[in-house]
Amino acid sequence: MHSDRDDIKDADQGAKDSIAHKLAQNMKEIAITEFFEKNKHILGFDSRTKSLLMGVKEAVDNSLDACEEAEILPEIYVKVEKVNDEDFNITIEDNGPGIVRKKIPDVFGRLLYGSRFHALRQSRGQQGIGISATVMFGNISTGKPAHIKSMIEGKDSVAWKMDIVIDTKINRPIVTNEEPFTWEGKTHGTRVDYCTKGEYRKGKQSIYEYLKNTAIVNPHARITFDDPEGKRHLFERATETLPVKSKEIKPHPQGREVGDIQKMLQLTQQKTLKAFLKNDFSRITDRIAEEILQVSKVSDKKVATVTREDCVALVKAIDTVKIMAPQTDCLSPIGDVLIKKGLMTVLDQQRPEYYAQPVTRPPKSVNGNPFLVEAGIVYGGDIPADSEVSILRIANRVPLLYQPGACLITKAVESMDWRRYGLDQRGGTGKPFGPAIILVHVASTKVPFTSEGKEAIANNEEIMGEIVQALRLCARNLKSHLNKRDKKGKTHAKFEIVQGIIPDMARKTSQMLGRPVPDLSRTISKIMNVVWLETKSSFDSKKKAKSVTYNIYNYTKTERSFRMHTKLPKEAVNESLLSKYFLNMNDEGKANWEVLNVPPFASVTISFDLTGDMADTFSESDVYISGVHPTLLMGADPLPGDWGIKGMEIIETDLDVSEETEEEEEDLEDDDEEKEEAKEDDE
Amino acid sequence: MHSDRDDIKDADQGAKDSIAHKLAQNMKEIAITEFFEKNKHILGFDSRTKSLLMGVKEAVDNSLDACEEAEILPEIYVKVEKVNDEDFNITIEDNGPGIVRKKIPDVFGRLLYGSRFHALRQSRGQQGIGISATVMFGNISTGKPAHIKSMIEGKDSVAWKMDIVIDTKINRPIVTNEEPFTWEGKTHGTRVDYCTKGEYRKGKQSIYEYLKNTAIVNPHARITFDDPEGKRHLFERATETLPVKSKEIKPHPQGREVGDIQKMLQLTQQKTLKAFLKNDFSRITDRIAEEILQVSKVSDKKVATVTREDCVALVKAIDTVKIMAPQTDCLSPIGDVLIKKGLMTVLDQQRPEYYAQPVTRPPKSVNGNPFLVEAGIVYGGDIPADSEVSILRIANRVPLLYQPGACLITKAVESMDWRRYGLDQRGGTGKPFGPAIILVHVASTKVPFTSEGKEAIANNEEIMGEIVQALRLCARNLKSHLNKRDKKGKTHAKFEIVQGIIPDMARKTSQMLGRPVPDLSRTISKIMNVVWLETKSSFDSKKKAKSVTYNIYNYTKTERSFRMHTKLPKEAVNESLLSKYFLNMNDEGKANWEVLNVPPFASVTISFDLTGDMADTFSESDVYISGVHPTLLMGADPLPGDWGIKGMEIIETDLDVSEETEEEEEDLEDDDEEKEEAKEDDE
Repeated sequence: MHSDRDDIKDADQGAKDSIAHKLAQNMKEIAITEFFEKNKHILGFDSRTKSLLMGVKEAVDNSLDACEEAEILPEIYVKVEKVNDEDFNITIEDNGPGIVRKKIPDVFGRLLYGSRFHALRQSRGQQGIGISATVMFGNISTGKPAHIKSMIEGKDSVAWKMDIVIDTKINRPIVTNEEPFTWEGKTHGTRVDYCTKGEYRKGKQSIYEYLKNTAIVNPHARITFDDPEGKRHLFERATETLPVKSKEIKPHPQGREVGDIQKMLQLTQQKTLKAFLKNDFSRITDRIAEEILQVSKVSDKKVATVTREDCVALVKAIDTVKIMAPQTDCLSPIGDVLIKKGLMTVLDQQRPEYYAQPVTRPPKSVNGNPFLVEAGIVYGGDIPADSEVSILRIANRVPLLYQPGACLITKAVESMDWRRYGLDQRGGTGKPFGPAIILVHVASTKVPFTSEGKEAIANNEEIMGEIVQALRLCARNLKSHLNKRDKKGKTHAKFEIVQGIIPDMARKTSQMLGRPVPDLSRTISKIMNVVWLETKSSFDSKKKAKSVTYNIYNYTKTERSFRMHTKLPKEAVNESLLSKYFLNMNDEGKANWEVLNVPPFASVTISFDLTGDMADTFSESDVYISGVHPTLLMGADPLPGDWGIKGMEIIETDLDVSEETEEEEEDLEDDDEEKEEAKEDDE
Repeated sequence: MHSDRDDIKDADQGAKDSIAHKLAQNMKEIAITEFFEKNKHILGFDSRTKSLLMGVKEAVDNSLDACEEAEILPEIYVKVEKVNDEDFNITIEDNGPGIVRKKIPDVFGRLLYGSRFHALRQSRGQQGIGISATVMFGNISTGKPAHIKSMIEGKDSVAWKMDIVIDTKINRPIVTNEEPFTWEGKTHGTRVDYCTKGEYRKGKQSIYEYLKNTAIVNPHARITFDDPEGKRHLFERATETLPVKSKEIKPHPQGREVGDIQKMLQLTQQKTLKAFLKNDFSRITDRIAEEILQVSKVSDKKVATVTREDCVALVKAIDTVKIMAPQTDCLSPIGDVLIKKGLMTVLDQQRPEYYAQPVTRPPKSVNGNPFLVEAGIVYGGDIPADSEVSILRIANRVPLLYQPGACLITKAVESMDWRRYGLDQRGGTGKPFGPAIILVHVASTKVPFTSEGKEAIANNEEIMGEIVQALRLCARNLKSHLNKRDKKGKTHAKFEIVQGIIPDMARKTSQMLGRPVPDLSRTISKIMNVVWLETKSSFDSKKKAKSVTYNIYNYTKTERSFRMHTKLPKEAVNESLLSKYFLNMNDEGKANWEVLNVPPFASVTISFDLTGDMADTFSESDVYISGVHPTLLMGADPLPGDWGIKGMEIIETDLDVSEETEEEEEDLEDDDEEKEEAKEDDE
């Protein structure tokens, strides 16, 4: 370590008035606050409109994080009030656990200070910059302090309020006023009031838009927003179930650099190298620690004696030894059911025609950082059909509103050929057109944002690949819906003729000839040659109950045995499911029925109820039939190959195929192409 | 100010084991080093290839800044050496002023430390992050310290060397070794040697490319590069003239926020508010200070008694009082001559057909920060004709290699319709195609980069507007060259016939008829009806001398008086300019000649020499004629409206126009369109 260098004599250092000495006089520390004061655009505070949004965003993100950590169902209140042409008063209040009094000044008045930076787990805030930057830009633009109130639950608890400004020369809070008070009607929570210069706007990239999208991906939160025009907007929660709390993990050995290992060795509590490997990393067992030592040819020595060369060898060994991927309970995905529910709750006014089955991809990891991708697509209804598809970009449950062009999610969407999934797209790349909203959620212990403003996700090949996979699966579901819709329309006409006119003709002819009316069932079956699934459903929003009925007709000339499959929202399932044909349901909600020996021209009925908050998230049209040749199926899809429940292989029956329509052939081809496409991606 | 908060009793703060207390335990400071260790992609160190480049870039940028500050012609040596498959040794050595011994550790071993952050002037480095981040990522990836050598000029001066690693937990340097040494053959300078993980690549976004582009925009620097394959590349300097040193200015009152004024008041040496306004800002005179006080209704009080409300009123007043734009000597443009020279020196192998006259726009300011834009276009020769145009993006004389899509310069280029300037472009927006290289330089006291990695310029309307203006002017010059080239080709045929065949026919006919050969000059003039300017030039690269000769023929039927105009590289001008017809030359090098009463079929000759480094930057074909109707001109352009020298209005003569070719009409229309276009932009 070097000692205080100021007392080193300069005699050996040339003329005192040399240019080097002159330059030295100006060299000094730059406070991080000064840095961001000058480069506010990096934090997203570069325009008045954006500043207003960024402030609200940072405060709401913190509130949601705090509530989740304390396992409290969030109640968030946001108010934006116009003071004059330029200034706005902003309020954000939550029912979180509150902040310990002595920590309040640093949390709100110091940049790069926080609790989540060092923890390896999914959270919204990570940098310890957002809320203090908000306070800082409020200070700078209006000269007014921020007012903080906070209260912790407890028997004799009082609430504290304080006024905070940031000393930007040294990045430290100045508390100008501090006192205890009684917070009426409150047992715990935090409230921030600050004044800032801003410009309020509606529509895209607005505070309303941010809160709406936040509600979609945080369906457990209730958010109330009083806008500057005095209008109140309530985003009601869609579920009372809290998200699974993400767990903190130890660093994974993959992706560590030599310097990382050296630093960890300096800080470790462990005595020996082996103990260090085993206890300070995740996924290193006794056996793996030994293998790493063996491969690296470093002996199990005292931590203090490990050299740089040892570390270099260890890093190389970690690259070659097979180590399990990091745990994934540090992530908290939204889940397919809740993505759908969130979308439905918020987008209900647009009455979409179809919510494609959302996809939650299994977790992967990049450089030892676990991540996962989720995707959903909403289609039709009042969503504008003649404009670009909207993309909801979400990172760790936070909607991203700015810099779409710089964002990996946009690039992933634009890289896909959406024409094969039923959307318009000029030339097969770029933004797709049509009545759709695409949602992509990237969750990670470390989302690589392009800047501290957290406006866009930086390029990353692995994450890109997962986004494309998730979107492809989701888009395939959309395509299958669109196919079914088209097919139904066409076949309906044929069916009406066969079912209505032929018996009518038979009756009339028989009458004229004075003969008995013949049994036409075999004839009709021969003409139709389909297994027809008819879906009926009704939803009682008061009782939160959905009744679903499937009538399956065998319009073929042979006896049929088959199984029916669908994925149910588990939370909504009840005893009504245990009907005659029901077989089983797995942990994911994948349910199976079996129907044996249905004679030609006969039908069976399968029905059940779903109840509770998630009942309406069930799409009854997403139903599959196995055991019947795909070309004979009408109103249901053949079971996809990845259904993946053991013992649920397609029943082998005599497949009688005598008619294949053009559309059906196209579908099959399309599926093949997709499989090939997916295969290429995997390589 | 709040006292040490740790001794506040927690009794009033709920249960000790509450979630709030648990959260509080994890709250702590995040060192900026830790922040960037985790988010290295923000600094541009996100891939092995990029890391290698970023390190070299940061060191070279610092060397150039230091040399400029000390007014030394930079000699920079860069070496990249492969140690093994992953590791590289990097060396950057300069002949700068050196660094005072006691400052070396902080300069290289501490983030956010430097001399240029607080100074309002154009410089490459500003953040105090680049070189220390380079040292840090070298440390982390290889565990090895960086080796620094530095020497200051002076009688008994010794050089010092030290080994530095960064303690990332606290953002402070650790000097592991330090000693004086004799630096053979060196009187002053600094050398950095460090080892880093990396991947070396050639082509686009390579170290070679970065150094090449650096040489273009820093024609006063000599750069030597030893690449990992042992090959040496030398970028020789194109001029011995140092750039004008940018001067530090005080902050301009425009764009200051309430908090900025409050902070400045806290730090000022001044006693009264008026003295503060007058002395701590630029462009505030006594009279303007009084006007600001009057408009704001704040009295001239003691600095200590100025309230927040006073500051709010002052900020409002500054918005309404007319204040001169900031001084612009804080900027150091490259200048049109040196941009051309730099491009010529480096791009000579590609033998371009034409270097469009580079444009240096007058300085403007955004929020009190002065900026200016320069642009140049290189066309033809061996530049690939069938691919996208290359864009050299430069900010404060530093080439930007990554993130072109996120950069304002790219967006500006893509926003223009290049088809009207002779390049291909699908649909009139997006990247243009053709054999061209476009250079754009943005210089400012504060370039708004999208992130600390300084890879791209963030969106800004004013800067965007200036880039488009500069490019348009430059592109117009290119278009005019392309027009002239096409025209010349076409007219050449006609001229050959008229000049060659008609006299030949006349002679032969006369011979056959035994009559004297008639004087054909009036006939030829009548057919040709042009004032024809013929250019000849030769360049002696050893003597660095260029001879230029213009022959101007009056092929019209009336006597002609006109002026000739061109812009000369001032540095290359000598006495030879003072020929018979020479009138004058202004500070910018705009030279004018006047020729009176040239009879039909007569000609005059104007010639001069240019000598020195800049002699070859003169494009003799960029020559203008005034006093002759544009449609009669051949080989020269009509004088553009913005030539702008008083007394040089076009001489009024009887304009005799009897023939207008189609091409000429098109040209005129084109010009009108451009004027309209420019007008729209101004609105």
